[in-house]
Amino acid sequence: MVTVNENYLKLPGNYLFSTIAKKVNEYASNNPDANIIRLGIGDVTEPIIPSVIEALHKAVDEMAVKETFRGYAPDLGYDFLRNAISENDYKSRGCDINPDEIFVSDGAKSDCSNIQEIFGADSKIAVCDPVYPVYVDSNVMAGRTGTYNPDTTMWSNVIYMPCTSDNNFTPELPKETPDLIYLCYPNNPTGTGISKENLQKWVDYALKVGAIILYDAAYEAYITDATMPHSIYECEGALDCAIEFRSFSKNAGFTGMRLGFTVIPKRLKASGEAVHPLWARRHGTKYNGAPYIVQRAGEAVYSESGKAEIKAQVAKYMSNATYLRNELIAAGYEVYGGVNAPYIWMKTPDGLGSWEFFDLLLKTANVVGTPGVGFGPSGENYFRLTAFGTYENSVEAIKRIKNL
Amino acid sequence: MVTVNENYLKLPGNYLFSTIAKKVNEYASNNPDANIIRLGIGDVTEPIIPSVIEALHKAVDEMAVKETFRGYAPDLGYDFLRNAISENDYKSRGCDINPDEIFVSDGAKSDCSNIQEIFGADSKIAVCDPVYPVYVDSNVMAGRTGTYNPDTTMWSNVIYMPCTSDNNFTPELPKETPDLIYLCYPNNPTGTGISKENLQKWVDYALKVGAIILYDAAYEAYITDATMPHSIYECEGALDCAIEFRSFSKNAGFTGMRLGFTVIPKRLKASGEAVHPLWARRHGTKYNGAPYIVQRAGEAVYSESGKAEIKAQVAKYMSNATYLRNELIAAGYEVYGGVNAPYIWMKTPDGLGSWEFFDLLLKTANVVGTPGVGFGPSGENYFRLTAFGTYENSVEAIKRIKNL
Repeated sequence: MVTVNENYLKLPGNYLFSTIAKKVNEYASNNPDANIIRLGIGDVTEPIIPSVIEALHKAVDEMAVKETFRGYAPDLGYDFLRNAISENDYKSRGCDINPDEIFVSDGAKSDCSNIQEIFGADSKIAVCDPVYPVYVDSNVMAGRTGTYNPDTTMWSNVIYMPCTSDNNFTPELPKETPDLIYLCYPNNPTGTGISKENLQKWVDYALKVGAIILYDAAYEAYITDATMPHSIYECEGALDCAIEFRSFSKNAGFTGMRLGFTVIPKRLKASGEAVHPLWARRHGTKYNGAPYIVQRAGEAVYSESGKAEIKAQVAKYMSNATYLRNELIAAGYEVYGGVNAPYIWMKTPDGLGSWEFFDLLLKTANVVGTPGVGFGPSGENYFRLTAFGTYENSVEAIKRIKNL
Repeated sequence: MVTVNENYLKLPGNYLFSTIAKKVNEYASNNPDANIIRLGIGDVTEPIIPSVIEALHKAVDEMAVKETFRGYAPDLGYDFLRNAISENDYKSRGCDINPDEIFVSDGAKSDCSNIQEIFGADSKIAVCDPVYPVYVDSNVMAGRTGTYNPDTTMWSNVIYMPCTSDNNFTPELPKETPDLIYLCYPNNPTGTGISKENLQKWVDYALKVGAIILYDAAYEAYITDATMPHSIYECEGALDCAIEFRSFSKNAGFTGMRLGFTVIPKRLKASGEAVHPLWARRHGTKYNGAPYIVQRAGEAVYSESGKAEIKAQVAKYMSNATYLRNELIAAGYEVYGGVNAPYIWMKTPDGLGSWEFFDLLLKTANVVGTPGVGFGPSGENYFRLTAFGTYENSVEAIKRIKNL
């Protein structure tokens, strides 16, 4: 008799953003006249830049003609894209990452959820708290996280590294030794950046204890501080202890286009075994490449015009971030993030629970944000707003929040 | 100290098609003047049909404008596509599959490799032999297959169901009871179809023993026999025991576009647990939807013009299949498939091993096929040719094979 994966049944409730979508849809259908402003899920609102649109049309035309039609893509991505990534994201910053260490995929979410699969079943993971839920949930599904305590909303076999205003949202090195350390900078959800010096400490620590850092750099385009690292490979020794995830979703608005990549240095080993061939094998067996037209779209992001256009788009979102941040501070809120990241991380007013504030904001102001506690217990009494809305909506949201 | 997933290390060699690509690339670079005809990997050669190209351009233009730009897709796919699938692929054939039982994805390969993950770790799988390697390899990675015997190239904990000319490539019900049964019809690699009566036997069997059938119908568009089922849900009881995988790769030439879907009926249960919510949870946690533009491309496949155009394209490939089949038979080969499937499954001449024949064909005729044994031990002394080449190449390949 066939059975299900019992680990799936341990997962409490739904995926955070699915829950929010459901709540919002319910409210919207009961209040069809409500003008809801969505600053919850980190989805972008600006259209795809002209250079990418042009590349897409061109690639679509290629697919229409026998001579230029493309079938299955190379397992790990087209060379034209891997070369552009290596050159622009790594070599230009002094990081020794070659094209064949880059695995093109349909997005950072797929990669950072699937990556755990190539490591031992008894690997112990460490995560920041609060954290992007995908890191933990994917390990729950794999049976690595022990038992769930509904009171603390924590798993018995996960090392949580609290990030609150008490430690400036900077996790301390864990007391218990992890095997896999998930780090995300600029951070989702707290909007915190990391200095090169602090990141180097993590690299040194990982090398010392034999752990691998799974580094999510999906928001690197939002760094405004010139001294902050955009890649973990800017740190010495990272080639021996780190995997990096990148996305085109936030720098180039590809949330609906689906493109990302993962870097695994060829010299990276886990207990003596090279990691690169394992991920290559996973790609070859369980994935069939990103669409040709989307890979061409990705290439266009690195063209001279593309770079200028995405820079302008990122600046637009960052001006929202600055606006939201300054106005909320002026209104008396305790506010973090929004300087090197498109996320505002605010303390809820009057000690309200995260979900209480979510409901209040949805029902009273028709503004959707993300409850901090949805990212982990240390996110309780915090709330995330994104800068990915339009400027007009950001202004309107602030107006409504001030009137709460 | 972090470790790797030991199961990955058990996998012998490389993924079949990666190995073939490597061999062919090596030969090509050593023989730059060789005019190699590739009838190996099941990749298509016809360009994308005009109706789809038009839909793609339109969708790309929508992405360029703020008012029509689309970010993250709904977790399980856009309604416009799920509705079109439900109507055209299921309701029109009398199958009671609703849009919310359809999960849109980036292809059948991803889905049929990932599906095992939602079932119990001790599930016993049954596969045809020969078989599409992804079914077995994905279970090896999950640790379900026991130990590998390099002499037999078989796994100790897999139920193999031999399909050879002795049983007309029709597997018998297994003696040992499986939990998950992989079936693929029309079959890859043998090109065999299945009658509704025979498929009903499998459904009845699965219901009797409490197994789930994982039904890969990626090639259903190639069925020419009007009595053959296109979906397993044409069989009575299948809603309670079957998951179906579909692809746009072979009917509409989407190998480089990436689109497919999986059907999980809401009433399907495994040991009392509903299966549908588990796959939904996996989608929500480990996947972020197929690109909007590609989903619009999929929708266009179901337009009146789209249906006519893909019908013509499929007919073109099938005329290759007929040609290859008839010519090889005329040349004295023992040939199967090619009637309800785009694959020709031939016996190697003079008792040659599958890889021996592969090398002979590559080096003497510069024709690439797929060694039958790469699909499993019962594929030894067989060889697969695809009808997805051009007509001119099919003619040229036959000429060269006749001259061997």
